[in-house]
Formats: sequence, C-alpha cells, structure tokens
Amino acid sequence: MKKANKKVTAAIVIIGNEILSGRTQDINVSFLAKWLNELGVIVGEVRIIEDNEISIVNCIREIKKNFKYIFTTGGIGPTHDDITSKSIAKAFNLSYGYHEEAYKILEKYYGSDKFSDGRKKMAKIPKGASLIYNPSSGAPGFIIENVFCLPGVPSILKSMTDGLSNKIIGGKKTLSKTISVQTVESEIAKSLENVQNGFKNVEIGSYPFFRLGKIGVSIVIRSTEKKEIDDCYEQIVSFLKKKEVHIIER
Amino acid sequence: MKKANKKVTAAIVIIGNEILSGRTQDINVSFLAKWLNELGVIVGEVRIIEDNEISIVNCIREIKKNFKYIFTTGGIGPTHDDITSKSIAKAFNLSYGYHEEAYKILEKYYGSDKFSDGRKKMAKIPKGASLIYNPSSGAPGFIIENVFCLPGVPSILKSMTDGLSNKIIGGKKTLSKTISVQTVESEIAKSLENVQNGFKNVEIGSYPFFRLGKIGVSIVIRSTEKKEIDDCYEQIVSFLKKKEVHIIER
Repeated sequence: MKKANKKVTAAIVIIGNEILSGRTQDINVSFLAKWLNELGVIVGEVRIIEDNEISIVNCIREIKKNFKYIFTTGGIGPTHDDITSKSIAKAFNLSYGYHEEAYKILEKYYGSDKFSDGRKKMAKIPKGASLIYNPSSGAPGFIIENVFCLPGVPSILKSMTDGLSNKIIGGKKTLSKTISVQTVESEIAKSLENVQNGFKNVEIGSYPFFRLGKIGVSIVIRSTEKKEIDDCYEQIVSFLKKKEVHIIER
Repeated sequence: MKKANKKVTAAIVIIGNEILSGRTQDINVSFLAKWLNELGVIVGEVRIIEDNEISIVNCIREIKKNFKYIFTTGGIGPTHDDITSKSIAKAFNLSYGYHEEAYKILEKYYGSDKFSDGRKKMAKIPKGASLIYNPSSGAPGFIIENVFCLPGVPSILKSMTDGLSNKIIGGKKTLSKTISVQTVESEIAKSLENVQNGFKNVEIGSYPFFRLGKIGVSIVIRSTEKKEIDDCYEQIVSFLKKKEVHIIER
C-alpha cells in the first residue's frame, strides 16, 4: 500500500437533524475514526450540521480546503429530507443528475417495475463524481474530489468502507498504549507532565473514568513511533510504582 | 421562566483527542441536546476539535458569533492536556488566573494539605468569568459571555446542568411525534414529501432502522406548534393506512 510521508488528516461531517436534536446517538464518528486510524489517517475535526442546503454548502466549502479527506454521513436516501447529494453538487458548483451506472445498479436492485421516483433520486449525484459501492442495500455513495459521501445508517456505512480502503493514501499509523490506574488525575498530573515534556513526538492523554463504582484514570500514550511509546510507557510505569499507584490494567 | 420570542440556537464544542481518535464514544452531545431542547434551545451545530490551543481559539472565535449559546465539554481537569480554560481566555483576549471563589471551593474540597499544583490549576479561569458549580467533584466550570465551559466526564457534566437551567433563556420548545412503520423509505418518500409541502412550520424527518432483524422507518414530526404536529400526524397516518403500511408504534 502507498504511504504518504507527512501526517494525513481527515474531517468527518455528520449531516442530520436527528443527531443534533439528541434523538439519535451518533456512532459513525467512532467507527470512521478507528477505520481511518488503521489506514494512517488522523481525524482532525468533526462537524455535525443540520440537513439544510446552506449549512451543507458552507461547511463543505470551508472544510474541504483544510483536510486531505472529508467524509460525510447521512442524507443520501430517497426521502425529501435527503439533500446531501444535491447540496454537495452545489458546494462544488457542479450540476446534479442521474449517474448512469448508479441508475442501472438501482434499477437492477429494485426491479424495473418497482423503480419509483424516490428510488431513482438515489441515482442522482454531482456530475463527475465516482461511485462508492454498497453491498448491503444497493444505493451507492460517491466521491467528488476529496469528499467521500456515505449513508447515515451505521451498518450500511460499515459495509461500504471495505471497498474504500484502497482509495485512501494514509501516512504512518498512530499506535497507542493504555495504562489504567486506580487514582485521581490530580495525583499524577505533575509526574505525567514531566514525562510529556521529555517526549515531543508522543501525545499523552489522561482520561478519568468511573467504572463498576471505582474511580480511575486511563493514561493513553499515542505516537507513530513505537520506540518512543515504549520509552514513555516505561517512565510512566516507573513513576506509578514509586508513587504506589495501583495499576488496574496495562 | 423568561422566554425569547425568536428561535434560540446553541452550538456544542466537544474538545478532546480521545473522541476524535474513536477511543471514546461521545455521549455528551445527545444529553446536552435533549436538555437544551427542554429549555427551548435548538442545537444548530456541533464541532469536535483537538485539544490544542490553536484549534480551540479559532473555533470559539468563529462560532461564538453565530449562536446565542456555546457549550464546551472537556479539558478543564488538572492534567497537562487540560488546556480549555487557558485557550478560552485567549479566544476572548482575557488574562487567565486564579478565581478566588473557585480556589476556596477546591481548597475546601481537597483539604489544604492535599491542595496540589494540579488541583490548584483547576481554580484558574479567564478573568471575569463566573462559576458553574460542580456538585459531584468540586472543580467548577465557568461562563464567559455566551460560552459555557463544562467538563468531559458525562456523569459530572450532567450533575452540573441542574444549576444551569435558570441561566438559559430559551424560546418555544420543539415538540415531536414519532411514527415507526414497517416499510422501506422509498415506499413512502413521495407521500411524505407531499405532506411536508403542506406544512412549512413542521420538519418531517425520515430515519431508516434495523431492529430485531426487522427493517423499518421512523417518521419524526417536529415543530414548536402542537396543532401543526397533530394535523401533520393525521395526514401521515391517513396515507399509511391507504398504502396498508404496518404501523409498529405511534
């Protein structure tokens, strides 16, 4: 697989009022972020926006310049509130119409007698976009320049990423190591900071948790360099032992 | 409770690499969105950003002009990666230092002999900010102009919103009604669109689902006007019956 030399970043744009209203819990961000990390792509920003044309156009125009890849989810179905394809076309000043292959795929999927207007709508994409095939439910996503448009239903989205991996050229994969300890953050803050100061290419995150009635902290070490993670890890374990902090898991 | 006449909107800014990496599943957006909806505030946008100063400063400066309220979560703890307070101060061109009352609260919470530098750091906020009290774990959040800064740990965040509701002046509450049907979206797309065209103040959303091995669609009708929701609901139920679409739940 080809690899980029520099850090490769992506943004995710979740399109849907159902997420903004709190009715639906998004789980696509976490899935896409892990999938992209495996490909050596770091998610640098996520935006969740309303499914109206102005929001989509403005967001895409602004964000597509700042990241190598943009992934959108949601709004490519057959109903009146599915306006992502049309809005993305507008964001790129492209016309929006039937894609010949998408039309054939959908016609075959539904059968020509059941190929209604709503279903035909799913064959309309920005002119010049290429398809992302959908092994679960027919209706394809599409790619235009650096923007990849995927559906919002998590199981369908997942099934479509398999065929996409070869279209993403990532950089070095970010590796991580986690140490979970039974303490509070403020007990280890100073020592963690000291370790962090010695490792410029490592990102040490500290995340308090409450699990099974116990409080604790997960210390997460992240870097593209395995050696640096290992060295950093040793220093952290060493100060934890000195402080007699109980290590729950590592 | 005071009510605004116009639509009142908010944005949520989730600060944290652990969400962007996919390691942690965010659940604060959904909680805050529902809480705000009860207060008559509509969440218009969410951004998830990295915990670095430039990202936070740029995001806050841009977004604070566009929404009546901004809620941030994350990055106000005691460790080196908690840089929200300092970054928000910078976004507002304010100095950042000890808040007298916050200092006293934390000193009392930990006891003066255990009031370490990491813990003291949590008493530092932008100059002129007011406190958001924390009934769970001492460390307060803060409000500066229209920006409300809350912690990232969901249980602590939740406990802090109780004391906040009286500081939010919302508009009319958005009401909703849901009809779940056993069909696919494309079967009802045209009829739904026809109903939508008759109701300018109602937002009809269509959300496919897969539950217990069954496919279906949730039709969600949202509006601030109960009468319009009821009328819209009647029209939808009527066409569903005509089409002999099985209604699972309503």
